[in-house]
Amino acid sequence: MKTIQRTLRIRAPRRGLTMITEQVARAVAESGVTAGLCNVFVQHTSASLTISENADPTARSDLEAFLDRLVPEDEPYFQHTTEGPDDMPSHIKSVLTDTSLNIPILGGALGLGTWQGIYLWEHRDAPPARSIVVTVQGD
Amino acid sequence: MKTIQRTLRIRAPRRGLTMITEQVARAVAESGVTAGLCNVFVQHTSASLTISENADPTARSDLEAFLDRLVPEDEPYFQHTTEGPDDMPSHIKSVLTDTSLNIPILGGALGLGTWQGIYLWEHRDAPPARSIVVTVQGD
Amino acid sequence: MKTIQRTLRIRAPRRGLTMITEQVARAVAESGVTAGLCNVFVQHTSASLTISENADPTARSDLEAFLDRLVPEDEPYFQHTTEGPDDMPSHIKSVLTDTSLNIPILGGALGLGTWQGIYLWEHRDAPPARSIVVTVQGD
Repeated sequence: MKTIQRTLRIRAPRRGLTMITEQVARAVAESGVTAGLCNVFVQHTSASLTISENADPTARSDLEAFLDRLVPEDEPYFQHTTEGPDDMPSHIKSVLTDTSLNIPILGGALGLGTWQGIYLWEHRDAPPARSIVVTVQGD
Repeated sequence: MKTIQRTLRIRAPRRGLTMITEQVARAVAESGVTAGLCNVFVQHTSASLTISENADPTARSDLEAFLDRLVPEDEPYFQHTTEGPDDMPSHIKSVLTDTSLNIPILGGALGLGTWQGIYLWEHRDAPPARSIVVTVQGD
Repeated sequence: MKTIQRTLRIRAPRRGLTMITEQVARAVAESGVTAGLCNVFVQHTSASLTISENADPTARSDLEAFLDRLVPEDEPYFQHTTEGPDDMPSHIKSVLTDTSLNIPILGGALGLGTWQGIYLWEHRDAPPARSIVVTVQGD
Protein backbone atom coordinates (compact mmCIF):
# COMPACT_ATOMS: atom_id res chain seq x y z
CA MET A 1 0.00 0.00 0.00
CA LYS A 2 1.06 3.55 -0.67
CA THR A 3 -0.08 7.13 -0.04
CA ILE A 4 -0.15 9.69 -2.86
CA GLN A 5 -1.18 13.31 -2.27
CA ARG A 6 -1.72 16.34 -4.42
CA THR A 7 -3.29 19.73 -3.90
CA LEU A 8 -5.79 21.13 -6.42
CA ARG A 9 -6.40 24.89 -6.66
CA ILE A 10 -9.93 25.61 -7.86
CA ARG A 11 -11.75 28.92 -8.10
CA ALA A 12 -15.51 28.52 -8.53
CA PRO A 13 -16.96 30.87 -11.16
CA ARG A 14 -19.70 31.82 -8.72
CA ARG A 15 -21.46 30.82 -5.49
CA GLY A 16 -23.06 27.38 -5.71
CA LEU A 17 -21.99 23.94 -6.93
CA THR A 18 -19.01 23.47 -9.26
CA MET A 19 -18.36 19.95 -10.49
CA ILE A 20 -14.79 18.71 -9.80
CA THR A 21 -15.23 15.01 -10.58
CA GLU A 22 -12.76 15.15 -13.45
CA GLN A 23 -9.98 16.81 -11.48
CA VAL A 24 -10.32 14.23 -8.69
CA ALA A 25 -10.54 11.35 -11.17
CA ARG A 26 -7.32 12.55 -12.80
CA ALA A 27 -5.50 12.58 -9.45
CA VAL A 28 -6.68 9.00 -8.86
CA ALA A 29 -5.59 7.86 -12.33
CA GLU A 30 -2.16 9.46 -11.89
CA SER A 31 -1.67 7.77 -8.52
CA GLY A 32 -1.64 4.33 -10.14
CA VAL A 33 -3.69 2.94 -7.23
CA THR A 34 -6.18 0.28 -8.37
CA ALA A 35 -7.88 -0.65 -5.07
CA GLY A 36 -8.17 1.78 -2.19
CA LEU A 37 -9.71 5.02 -1.03
CA CYS A 38 -9.61 8.62 -2.18
CA ASN A 39 -9.99 11.41 0.40
CA VAL A 40 -10.88 14.89 -0.86
CA PHE A 41 -10.42 17.66 1.73
CA VAL A 42 -11.17 21.37 1.34
CA GLN A 43 -8.91 23.54 3.52
CA HIS A 44 -11.52 26.24 4.15
CA THR A 45 -14.49 26.98 6.42
CA SER A 46 -16.63 28.98 3.97
CA ALA A 47 -16.69 26.45 1.13
CA SER A 48 -17.45 22.74 1.31
CA LEU A 49 -17.74 19.54 -0.70
CA THR A 50 -20.60 17.22 -1.54
CA ILE A 51 -21.53 14.28 -3.72
CA SER A 52 -24.84 14.66 -5.55
CA GLU A 53 -26.75 14.22 -8.79
CA ASN A 54 -24.46 14.79 -11.80
CA ALA A 55 -26.88 15.02 -14.74
CA ASP A 56 -29.63 17.60 -14.25
CA PRO A 57 -28.56 21.23 -13.59
CA THR A 58 -31.90 21.91 -11.86
CA ALA A 59 -30.97 19.41 -9.13
CA ARG A 60 -27.97 21.66 -8.42
CA SER A 61 -29.95 24.90 -8.44
CA ASP A 62 -32.64 23.35 -6.21
CA LEU A 63 -29.93 22.25 -3.74
CA GLU A 64 -28.56 25.79 -3.65
CA ALA A 65 -32.07 27.27 -3.29
CA PHE A 66 -32.85 24.91 -0.41
CA LEU A 67 -29.61 25.68 1.45
CA ASP A 68 -30.13 29.44 1.03
CA ARG A 69 -33.57 29.12 2.62
CA LEU A 70 -32.31 26.83 5.39
CA VAL A 71 -29.48 29.21 6.29
CA PRO A 72 -30.71 32.76 5.60
CA GLU A 73 -28.45 35.80 5.65
CA ASP A 74 -28.94 38.71 8.06
CA GLU A 75 -30.34 36.68 10.96
CA PRO A 76 -30.65 39.25 13.77
CA TYR A 77 -28.81 36.96 16.23
CA PHE A 78 -25.68 36.53 14.05
CA GLN A 79 -22.64 38.19 15.66
CA HIS A 80 -19.93 36.94 13.27
CA THR A 81 -20.68 39.36 10.42
CA THR A 82 -17.42 41.27 9.79
CA GLU A 83 -17.01 39.92 6.27
CA GLY A 84 -20.56 40.65 5.16
CA PRO A 85 -23.97 38.94 5.10
CA ASP A 86 -22.55 35.77 3.49
CA ASP A 87 -19.91 35.36 6.24
CA MET A 88 -21.69 33.43 9.00
CA PRO A 89 -24.06 31.57 6.61
CA SER A 90 -21.00 30.27 4.73
CA HIS A 91 -19.61 28.69 7.92
CA ILE A 92 -22.98 27.15 8.81
CA LYS A 93 -23.48 25.77 5.29
CA SER A 94 -19.99 24.24 5.42
CA VAL A 95 -20.77 22.53 8.72
CA LEU A 96 -24.08 21.10 7.40
CA THR A 97 -22.41 19.72 4.25
CA ASP A 98 -18.92 18.12 3.96
CA THR A 99 -15.37 19.31 4.53
CA SER A 100 -14.06 15.96 3.28
CA LEU A 101 -15.26 13.10 1.09
CA ASN A 102 -14.04 9.50 1.09
CA ILE A 103 -14.63 7.54 -2.07
CA PRO A 104 -13.63 3.95 -2.86
CA ILE A 105 -11.23 3.29 -5.72
CA LEU A 106 -12.33 0.23 -7.69
CA GLY A 107 -10.42 -1.09 -10.70
CA GLY A 108 -8.18 1.97 -10.78
CA ALA A 109 -11.02 4.51 -10.94
CA LEU A 110 -13.34 6.39 -8.58
CA GLY A 111 -16.08 4.00 -7.47
CA LEU A 112 -18.88 6.52 -7.92
CA GLY A 113 -22.38 5.43 -8.84
CA THR A 114 -23.74 6.31 -12.28
CA TRP A 115 -25.43 9.50 -11.08
CA GLN A 116 -22.89 10.69 -8.55
CA GLY A 117 -20.75 13.77 -9.14
CA ILE A 118 -18.21 15.45 -6.84
CA TYR A 119 -18.81 19.15 -6.18
CA LEU A 120 -17.02 22.07 -4.63
CA TRP A 121 -19.80 24.00 -2.88
CA GLU A 122 -18.81 27.63 -2.78
CA HIS A 123 -20.68 29.69 -0.17
CA ARG A 124 -19.05 33.10 -0.66
CA ASP A 125 -20.33 35.67 -3.16
CA ALA A 126 -16.83 36.63 -4.27
CA PRO A 127 -15.09 33.25 -4.38
CA PRO A 128 -11.34 33.12 -3.80
CA ALA A 129 -9.32 30.17 -5.17
CA ARG A 130 -9.73 27.15 -2.88
CA SER A 131 -7.13 24.54 -1.89
CA ILE A 132 -8.37 20.97 -2.07
CA VAL A 133 -6.06 18.16 -0.92
CA VAL A 134 -6.56 14.77 -2.61
CA THR A 135 -5.09 11.82 -0.73
CA VAL A 136 -5.09 8.39 -2.36
CA GLN A 137 -4.26 5.30 -0.30
CA GLY A 138 -4.22 1.77 -1.64
CA ASP A 139 -2.46 -0.83 -3.73
CA MET B 1 -1.32 -3.04 5.50
CA LYS B 2 -3.86 -4.25 3.01
CA THR B 3 -7.05 -3.15 1.26
CA ILE B 4 -10.10 -5.43 1.11
CA GLN B 5 -13.30 -4.41 -0.69
CA ARG B 6 -16.73 -5.87 -1.13
CA THR B 7 -20.04 -4.60 -2.42
CA LEU B 8 -23.25 -5.17 -0.48
CA ARG B 9 -26.64 -5.06 -2.22
CA ILE B 10 -29.37 -3.97 0.17
CA ARG B 11 -32.99 -3.14 -0.54
CA ALA B 12 -34.69 -1.28 2.30
CA PRO B 13 -38.19 -2.58 3.05
CA ARG B 14 -39.46 1.00 3.09
CA ARG B 15 -38.43 4.65 3.26
CA GLY B 16 -36.53 5.46 6.46
CA LEU B 17 -33.69 3.91 8.44
CA THR B 18 -32.63 0.28 7.92
CA MET B 19 -29.92 -1.04 10.22
CA ILE B 20 -26.96 -2.56 8.36
CA THR B 21 -24.47 -2.86 11.25
CA GLU B 22 -24.35 -6.65 10.96
CA GLN B 23 -23.62 -6.71 7.23
CA VAL B 24 -20.77 -4.21 7.67
CA ALA B 25 -19.43 -6.05 10.74
CA ARG B 26 -19.36 -9.28 8.73
CA ALA B 27 -17.34 -7.65 5.95
CA VAL B 28 -14.85 -6.41 8.57
CA ALA B 29 -14.59 -9.84 10.22
CA GLU B 30 -14.02 -11.53 6.86
CA SER B 31 -11.26 -9.07 5.95
CA GLY B 32 -9.07 -10.34 8.78
CA VAL B 33 -7.98 -6.76 9.54
CA THR B 34 -7.48 -6.17 13.28
CA ALA B 35 -6.43 -2.49 13.35
CA GLY B 36 -7.53 -0.03 10.69
CA LEU B 37 -10.48 1.76 9.16
CA CYS B 38 -13.70 0.70 7.48
CA ASN B 39 -15.23 2.96 4.81
CA VAL B 40 -18.88 2.41 3.88
CA PHE B 41 -19.96 4.19 0.68
CA VAL B 42 -23.44 4.26 -0.89
CA GLN B 43 -23.30 4.64 -4.69
CA HIS B 44 -26.53 6.65 -4.94
CA THR B 45 -27.79 10.22 -4.56
CA SER B 46 -31.30 9.47 -3.23
CA ALA B 47 -30.29 7.25 -0.31
CA SER B 48 -27.65 7.90 2.32
CA LEU B 49 -25.93 6.50 5.40
CA THR B 50 -25.79 7.55 9.02
CA ILE B 51 -24.64 6.40 12.44
CA SER B 52 -27.22 6.85 15.19
CA GLU B 53 -28.92 5.36 18.24
CA ASN B 54 -29.29 1.58 17.88
CA ALA B 55 -31.66 0.63 20.67
CA ASP B 56 -34.92 2.60 20.64
CA PRO B 57 -37.07 2.44 17.48
CA THR B 58 -38.66 5.80 18.37
CA ALA B 59 -35.26 7.50 17.98
CA ARG B 60 -35.33 6.27 14.37
CA SER B 61 -38.90 7.36 13.69
CA ASP B 62 -38.22 10.77 15.27
CA LEU B 63 -35.17 11.19 13.01
CA GLU B 64 -37.28 10.39 9.97
CA ALA B 65 -40.08 12.73 11.14
CA PHE B 66 -37.59 15.56 11.69
CA LEU B 67 -35.96 15.14 8.26
CA ASP B 68 -39.37 15.04 6.54
CA ARG B 69 -40.25 18.37 8.17
CA LEU B 70 -36.85 19.89 7.41
CA VAL B 71 -37.07 18.91 3.73
CA PRO B 72 -40.72 19.03 2.71
CA GLU B 73 -42.02 17.67 -0.58
CA ASP B 74 -43.75 19.84 -3.18
CA GLU B 75 -41.83 23.05 -2.44
CA PRO B 76 -43.08 25.47 -5.14
CA TYR B 77 -39.50 26.42 -6.12
CA PHE B 78 -38.36 22.82 -6.82
CA GLN B 79 -37.60 22.30 -10.53
CA HIS B 80 -36.08 18.79 -10.35
CA THR B 81 -39.36 16.89 -9.99
CA THR B 82 -39.49 14.45 -12.92
CA GLU B 83 -39.45 11.38 -10.70
CA GLY B 84 -42.16 12.55 -8.32
CA PRO B 85 -42.51 14.54 -5.08
CA ASP B 86 -39.82 12.45 -3.31
CA ASP B 87 -37.24 13.13 -6.08
CA MET B 88 -35.63 16.44 -5.08
CA PRO B 89 -36.14 15.94 -1.30
CA SER B 90 -34.24 12.64 -1.58
CA HIS B 91 -31.20 14.43 -3.04
CA ILE B 92 -31.32 17.16 -0.38
CA LYS B 93 -31.68 14.62 2.45
CA SER B 94 -28.68 12.70 1.08
CA VAL B 95 -26.57 15.86 1.02
CA LEU B 96 -27.52 16.75 4.62
CA THR B 97 -26.67 13.26 5.90
CA ASP B 98 -23.77 10.98 4.77
CA THR B 99 -22.76 9.35 1.52
CA SER B 100 -19.88 7.62 3.29
CA LEU B 101 -18.95 6.60 6.83
CA ASN B 102 -15.48 5.95 8.21
CA ILE B 103 -15.29 3.77 11.29
CA PRO B 104 -12.19 2.61 13.20
CA ILE B 105 -11.47 -1.12 13.42
CA LEU B 106 -10.25 -1.99 16.92
CA GLY B 107 -9.29 -5.53 17.94
CA GLY B 108 -10.65 -6.98 14.70
CA ALA B 109 -14.12 -5.48 15.05
CA LEU B 110 -15.96 -2.22 14.28
CA GLY B 111 -15.02 0.33 16.95
CA LEU B 112 -18.58 1.57 17.42
CA GLY B 113 -19.77 2.91 20.75
CA THR B 114 -22.31 0.91 22.75
CA TRP B 115 -25.29 2.83 21.35
CA GLN B 116 -24.11 3.34 17.77
CA GLY B 117 -25.71 1.56 14.83
CA ILE B 118 -25.01 1.89 11.10
CA TYR B 119 -28.03 2.73 8.95
CA LEU B 120 -28.94 2.87 5.29
CA TRP B 121 -31.24 5.88 5.08
CA GLU B 122 -33.63 5.33 2.20
CA HIS B 123 -35.29 8.51 0.92
CA ARG B 124 -37.39 7.09 -1.96
CA ASP B 125 -40.92 5.80 -1.48
CA ALA B 126 -40.34 2.81 -3.76
CA PRO B 127 -36.83 1.75 -2.79
CA PRO B 128 -34.67 0.00 -5.40
CA ALA B 129 -31.78 -2.23 -4.27
CA ARG B 130 -28.80 -0.08 -3.28
CA SER B 131 -25.08 -0.78 -3.83
CA ILE B 132 -22.91 -0.14 -0.81
CA VAL B 133 -19.12 -0.53 -1.14
CA VAL B 134 -17.26 -1.54 2.02
CA THR B 135 -13.51 -0.84 1.97
CA VAL B 136 -11.35 -2.10 4.83
CA GLN B 137 -7.76 -0.87 5.16
CA GLY B 138 -5.39 -1.92 7.91
CA ASP B 139 -3.14 -4.58 9.36
CA MET C 1 2.37 2.19 5.54
CA LYS C 2 1.23 1.69 9.09
CA THR C 3 -1.84 2.17 11.30
CA ILE C 4 -1.58 3.90 14.71
CA GLN C 5 -4.60 4.29 16.99
CA ARG C 6 -5.27 5.97 20.28
CA THR C 7 -8.39 6.87 22.23
CA LEU C 8 -8.84 10.33 23.71
CA ARG C 9 -11.22 10.92 26.64
CA ILE C 10 -12.62 14.44 26.57
CA ARG C 11 -15.31 16.00 28.74
CA ALA C 12 -16.65 19.26 27.34
CA PRO C 13 -17.08 21.95 29.99
CA ARG C 14 -20.56 22.67 28.64
CA ARG C 15 -22.90 22.14 25.70
CA GLY C 16 -21.50 23.60 22.46
CA LEU C 17 -18.18 23.54 20.63
CA THR C 18 -14.94 22.57 22.38
CA MET C 19 -11.76 22.84 20.34
CA ILE C 20 -9.73 19.61 20.24
CA THR C 21 -7.26 20.49 17.47
CA GLU C 22 -4.27 20.24 19.82
CA GLN C 23 -5.13 16.80 21.17
CA VAL C 24 -5.57 15.43 17.63
CA ALA C 25 -2.39 17.16 16.42
CA ARG C 26 -0.46 15.56 19.27
CA ALA C 27 -1.73 12.07 18.33
CA VAL C 28 -0.59 12.71 14.75
CA ALA C 29 2.85 13.96 15.86
CA GLU C 30 3.32 10.94 18.12
CA SER C 31 2.41 8.53 15.31
CA GLY C 32 5.48 9.54 13.32
CA VAL C 33 3.42 9.46 10.10
CA THR C 34 4.49 12.18 7.65
CA ALA C 35 2.09 11.56 4.72
CA GLY C 36 -1.33 10.01 5.23
CA LEU C 37 -4.75 10.49 6.76
CA CYS C 38 -6.08 11.04 10.24
CA ASN C 39 -9.56 9.75 11.13
CA VAL C 40 -11.25 11.16 14.24
CA PHE C 41 -14.31 9.18 15.40
CA VAL C 42 -16.62 9.96 18.33
CA GLN C 43 -18.16 6.80 19.83
CA HIS C 44 -21.44 8.47 20.81
CA THR C 45 -24.79 9.47 19.29
CA SER C 46 -25.47 12.61 21.35
CA ALA C 47 -22.17 14.41 20.65
CA SER C 48 -20.48 14.96 17.30
CA LEU C 49 -17.46 16.47 15.56
CA THR C 50 -16.99 19.29 13.12
CA ILE C 51 -14.33 21.39 11.44
CA SER C 52 -15.01 25.12 11.48
CA GLU C 53 -13.61 28.62 12.03
CA ASN C 54 -10.89 28.60 14.73
CA ALA C 55 -10.35 32.30 15.48
CA ASP C 56 -13.54 34.15 16.39
CA PRO C 57 -15.57 32.84 19.38
CA THR C 58 -18.73 34.45 17.95
CA ALA C 59 -18.54 32.10 14.94
CA ARG C 60 -18.83 29.26 17.45
CA SER C 61 -21.70 30.79 19.40
CA ASP C 62 -23.55 31.61 16.15
CA LEU C 63 -23.15 27.99 15.02
CA GLU C 64 -24.61 26.77 18.31
CA ALA C 65 -27.45 29.34 18.13
CA PHE C 66 -28.29 28.26 14.57
CA LEU C 67 -28.33 24.55 15.42
CA ASP C 68 -30.52 25.16 18.47
CA ARG C 69 -33.05 26.96 16.27
CA LEU C 70 -32.86 24.31 13.53
CA VAL C 71 -33.44 21.47 16.01
CA PRO C 72 -35.69 22.81 18.78
CA GLU C 73 -36.41 20.93 21.99
CA ASP C 74 -39.89 19.83 23.03
CA GLU C 75 -41.24 19.23 19.51
CA PRO C 76 -44.70 17.75 20.13
CA TYR C 77 -44.04 14.84 17.76
CA PHE C 78 -40.85 13.65 19.52
CA GLN C 79 -41.33 10.24 21.12
CA HIS C 80 -37.73 9.54 22.19
CA THR C 81 -37.70 11.80 25.26
CA THR C 82 -36.82 9.55 28.23
CA GLU C 83 -33.57 11.35 28.96
CA GLY C 84 -35.04 14.86 28.85
CA PRO C 85 -35.68 17.63 26.34
CA ASP C 86 -32.07 17.52 25.04
CA ASP C 87 -32.29 13.76 24.29
CA MET C 88 -33.81 13.57 20.80
CA PRO C 89 -32.35 16.92 19.63
CA SER C 90 -28.87 15.62 20.52
CA HIS C 91 -29.31 12.63 18.20
CA ILE C 92 -30.62 14.81 15.37
CA LYS C 93 -27.80 17.33 15.77
CA SER C 94 -25.26 14.50 15.67
CA VAL C 95 -26.76 13.16 12.43
CA LEU C 96 -26.70 16.61 10.78
CA THR C 97 -23.06 17.20 11.74
CA ASP C 98 -20.20 14.62 11.79
CA THR C 99 -19.51 11.43 13.69
CA SER C 100 -16.10 11.19 12.02
CA LEU C 101 -13.61 13.52 10.35
CA ASN C 102 -10.89 12.60 7.87
CA ILE C 103 -7.99 15.00 7.59
CA PRO C 104 -4.89 14.74 5.40
CA ILE C 105 -1.47 14.56 7.07
CA LEU C 106 1.03 16.67 5.16
CA GLY C 107 4.68 17.01 6.18
CA GLY C 108 4.04 15.20 9.47
CA ALA C 109 1.25 17.51 10.61
CA LEU C 110 -2.51 17.91 10.21
CA GLY C 111 -3.18 19.47 6.79
CA LEU C 112 -5.76 21.92 8.08
CA GLY C 113 -6.27 25.30 6.44
CA THR C 114 -5.25 28.45 8.33
CA TRP C 115 -8.72 29.03 9.76
CA GLN C 116 -9.79 25.44 10.39
CA GLY C 117 -10.17 24.04 13.89
CA ILE C 118 -11.38 20.60 15.02
CA TYR C 119 -14.27 20.62 17.48
CA LEU C 120 -16.09 18.21 19.73
CA TRP C 121 -19.72 19.34 19.49
CA GLU C 122 -21.44 18.44 22.73
CA HIS C 123 -25.24 18.32 22.50
CA ARG C 124 -26.12 17.27 26.06
CA ASP C 125 -26.68 19.75 28.87
CA ALA C 126 -24.79 17.62 31.39
CA PRO C 127 -21.88 16.34 29.32
CA PRO C 128 -20.32 13.00 30.23
CA ALA C 129 -16.71 12.26 29.19
CA ARG C 130 -16.60 11.26 25.52
CA SER C 131 -14.42 8.64 23.81
CA ILE C 132 -12.81 9.78 20.60
CA VAL C 133 -10.75 7.31 18.57
CA VAL C 134 -7.93 8.78 16.48
CA THR C 135 -6.65 6.51 13.69
CA VAL C 136 -3.59 7.56 11.70
CA GLN C 137 -2.68 5.70 8.51
CA GLY C 138 0.28 6.53 6.31
CA ASP C 139 4.02 6.42 5.79
